[in-house]
Order: sequence, then C-alpha cells, then structure tokens
Amino acid sequence: MTFTVTILGSNSAIPAADRHPTAQVVTINDHLFLVDCAEGTQLQMRRFKVHALRISHVFISHLHGDHFFGLIGLISTYNLLERHTPLSIHAPQPLEEVLRLQLSVAGTQLVYPLNFYPVDPSVPGIIFEDEVVTVEAFPVVHRIPTCGFLFREKARTRNIRKDFLDTESPSYDDIRRIKAGGDYTNPNGKHYRNADITYSRHKPGAYAYCTDTAYHEPLTGYVRGVDLLYHEATFMEKESGMAEMKYHATAMQAATIAMKAGVKRLILGHYSNRYDDLQPLLDEARRVFPESYLAMDGDVFEIG
Amino acid sequence: MTFTVTILGSNSAIPAADRHPTAQVVTINDHLFLVDCAEGTQLQMRRFKVHALRISHVFISHLHGDHFFGLIGLISTYNLLERHTPLSIHAPQPLEEVLRLQLSVAGTQLVYPLNFYPVDPSVPGIIFEDEVVTVEAFPVVHRIPTCGFLFREKARTRNIRKDFLDTESPSYDDIRRIKAGGDYTNPNGKHYRNADITYSRHKPGAYAYCTDTAYHEPLTGYVRGVDLLYHEATFMEKESGMAEMKYHATAMQAATIAMKAGVKRLILGHYSNRYDDLQPLLDEARRVFPESYLAMDGDVFEIG
Repeated sequence: MTFTVTILGSNSAIPAADRHPTAQVVTINDHLFLVDCAEGTQLQMRRFKVHALRISHVFISHLHGDHFFGLIGLISTYNLLERHTPLSIHAPQPLEEVLRLQLSVAGTQLVYPLNFYPVDPSVPGIIFEDEVVTVEAFPVVHRIPTCGFLFREKARTRNIRKDFLDTESPSYDDIRRIKAGGDYTNPNGKHYRNADITYSRHKPGAYAYCTDTAYHEPLTGYVRGVDLLYHEATFMEKESGMAEMKYHATAMQAATIAMKAGVKRLILGHYSNRYDDLQPLLDEARRVFPESYLAMDGDVFEIG
Repeated sequence: MTFTVTILGSNSAIPAADRHPTAQVVTINDHLFLVDCAEGTQLQMRRFKVHALRISHVFISHLHGDHFFGLIGLISTYNLLERHTPLSIHAPQPLEEVLRLQLSVAGTQLVYPLNFYPVDPSVPGIIFEDEVVTVEAFPVVHRIPTCGFLFREKARTRNIRKDFLDTESPSYDDIRRIKAGGDYTNPNGKHYRNADITYSRHKPGAYAYCTDTAYHEPLTGYVRGVDLLYHEATFMEKESGMAEMKYHATAMQAATIAMKAGVKRLILGHYSNRYDDLQPLLDEARRVFPESYLAMDGDVFEIG
C-alpha cells in the first residue's frame, strides 16, 4: 500500500542540465496519476521506470507549454503501443482542440478512448474521484488561468478485531459487511458498533500541488494540514520583484505558505534555470519552514 | 569551412534507450539548419552542444508527431531566451495552425519574427536558398504527404593564382571582381578568363535526407550522386511485409537506393524500437552497399 509522488521534471520552462520541466506521477496503490506533462515526460518515465501504460488520468494545471507540450507525444506513443484502456485528461478546455488538431494533421485515429474533462481553474472543487482518491482543483494566481491539485487518499478497508472474531465467529457475509463499515448484531440481539469491533493503522494521506503561482495566502485554506505540499520556488527572495512580475514565487514564500498552512513537509520545485546550485533556495526555505526539501528529477516522496 | 550533419535523434516514433526520435542539424560554415524536430530535440541540442540560437531555418518533412512535436517547445524556449532574429519554418501548411493555436492558448506573444513557408510535399523543387546552400524538397512515399530534402552546398569564392598576381598586380577592386567570378583585362588590353587566373580546391557537397518513406526507386533520380544520403531503415528485410504495410523501408532497401543512385556514402536511421542491437541492420545494408553506416544520436557526419 503506497502513496507517493515521483518527480519527472523539477525545473521551470527552460530545461537545465538534468532538470526537465514540470511533470510528476502520483501513485496510490496501483493507481497512477500524471500531473502536468512537459516536453520529454515520456522519456523521463522510461528513465525512472514509471509504468507509463498504467496511467489512467492526467491532470494539467494550466496551458503554458512547459506543463503540457509532452502530452501529445505520450498520447501518440500509447497509440503505437496499442493501448486499449481509456485515458482521461482533466485540463482547461482549450487543450482539447490542441490535442485533436495535432492528431488530425497526422491522420491519427486513436485505438483507445481519449476522454477529455474540462477543468475551470477558477472554480474550486472535486474534479475526480475513484476508490482510492479524490482530486480537488483550486485556483492559484498566475498569468493565465491556473489551478493547483489536492490528492486526498480515501480511508482503506478496516480490519476486524481478533477478540470479536474469537467471541462471535461471524459469517463470511457478516465479515464483508463489517469491513464495509457496518455494525453487527449477533443472533442473541447483542449489538456491536463498527468502530468498536474494527481498527485501522492507516491514516489517509493528502498531497497538494501548487505551480505555477505567485505568493497567495488564501492557498493556505486549500492545502491546510496536508502531509506533503509541492509549492513552486522559481526564484530566491532577493528576486522577489521578478517573481511578482512573472506571477511566480520565491523559496521563502513557498516556505511561508507551508508554515501558515501547517503542512507536514514541503517540497520545492519549478526552479529557474539561472540556478545551478539549489542549496541556497533550500537554505532560504528552511529558515522559515525546517521541513523543506528540494524536489529533483527522479526523486520519490512518500506521503502520509 | 564545414558541411556536416549532426544526428539528434535516430529512432522511429517510440523512443528507445538512448535513441530519440527524428531530428538533425545540418551545418554549413556558420549556418545551422534543423531538419525535423521530434519531442526532446531541444534537450538533445543541449546534450550535444548544438548552438540552438544559431538555427535560422527549420525544415519539417511531414506531420507525423515524431517529426515535429518538439518544435513548439523550441519556439517557446527561444521566446524565453529573448531571441530576436527571425526563425523560418518550412513545412506542410497545417503545421502553421498547430503552432499558432498552441501559442494562443498559452497567451504567448513571440518577441521574435516567426515566418512560416508552406511546403507542398508533392511538388519537387527548390524551397530555400541563401549564400551557402540551396535546399530542394522532393516527394517520398508515406502514409501522409511527406518530402525528402536535398542540401546542395554552393561553390565557394575562388582563390586567385599567385603567378597572375605577381605578373599583373591587380588593384583591390579588380581582385574583388575576379573573386566574384569576373574576367580581367590589363591596361595594355590583355584579356584573362576567370577560370585561367583562379582556382578552388573546394568541391561543393550534397546531402540528401529521405525519411519517412517506403522503398521507391524514383528517389534515385532526386538523390543521384550525393556525397551523403540519409535513408530510413525502420526494419530489417525479413520484416519487408511490415515495412510495405507501414510505408517504411528496410536496411536492404535503403542500401539498394544508395547503390542505384550512385551516392558516395549512406547512413541508416529511423530504427524500429524492436531492435536493441543495430549491427544486423548495418550488416544487411553493407552486403548491398559497403559504404553504409549507422546514424546514432550524437554522431556528426562530414559531407563532401
């Protein structure tokens, strides 16, 4: 049972040596979700041994190219590999025409279903849900409409206490009902509440993704208390004027959001390619929020 | 004085380990021309130290994604780098809308001129000319309209023979006229023909690029006698049925075109990712045309 995020690209738009532009894979058990998809993402998946064909849903934060130029290549490669399971894209509406046009000029008929679910970045709310996760989008502040994403793991099936099993010897059907959350009443009419006869060591995790965005304190409301926050840190604080002008954030601002939102850990990313050495960004963040870490291509962070 | 081709991607559509999909840079002196531009091309330029900002013209053979998905990323990176010199794209017409739409959804206003020159792949002829080269397009045979490209280096300025300089001591203006191809008449009325008073050790080179294409003997007419021919060899001859069905060629077919066209050297490329070891493709080609070589990512081939 896993909940992780794998960094496929940690840099801002212009690739730096060994730092690709933005893409990540969120893995919850055997469910894989792709978050943004810069140019070269499919190559990074191969490099970091991500099982690309198991990705079923893609979430695109906004339509700057360093967040989606790799998607059409991935879609095309899936086609050549004769994928048959559906692929769902959750993204701002104009991306649908971009993808359809590129498939059209190539004369490509996809052999698998490609489903497009438009996301309005200005409207917060749940945009996707399955048996392991809910995904919420929430607005961030950038030059064009952009959203962050919040992955909330769902509670797992609870285990039944051994003393109850020994005492009551419930049937297979009873066990199934209890694991699904039901109470139990024995043949003599004795009633057991579910919480009293089950337990779980699992605490569902939460992961929030905020890029690209200017410093924006209301974000703390959306990401409050998450186990792991990815917040862009394109610049250092001494470039805060540049950050403000370009609707990006500094390492200190990312750390301030993390601190004010009471998250457990912060990972920084979306670095400007002006920085060869990222240690000063990390140092700057840790002065505000000690549980800060650098996201680097290939890193895998555990959540929860 | 150089005339070379640098292989940025030697593979067919699905990237293989260390073999990117198609892109090349043709360099003639300090003029750089990009030929096709698969996803990841800008990363390969960085890796192989190609001076990307010096590229002024891009030639796209056809609109299958593995030949152009990297172009919008390169165009965007040039913008972020504040390129100011014009970039010219020579490609099938529908690509213009693909590029404009992607810039539009990102809200990008380019800070440099992007000039689009539509190429009709079915019409052979010169599509570009400057002081060092002419570029001809010619139709090849693929699932969608596709052309090959022929780069013909222009003759360089001729040198003036030393015995003539010693005898006649021509003026600076006379020398300029003679270097530009003019004859010379001395003050006494003695006439010298240009060919008799100049020499050149330089023989202009020619490079032909044929991918993607099925085996098609009329290609020999377009590429006759070139110094270097790049011809796709997606498959081995034992897969010739697959090659025919997919409008691709085998290594043996590439070698047969090279032999029949009387070219000096052949380089193979656009390999199927089913081949980890390419030596059998090379062996197959050399049995027909001994001057065959494998194109691999990062290779630089001299022309002429």
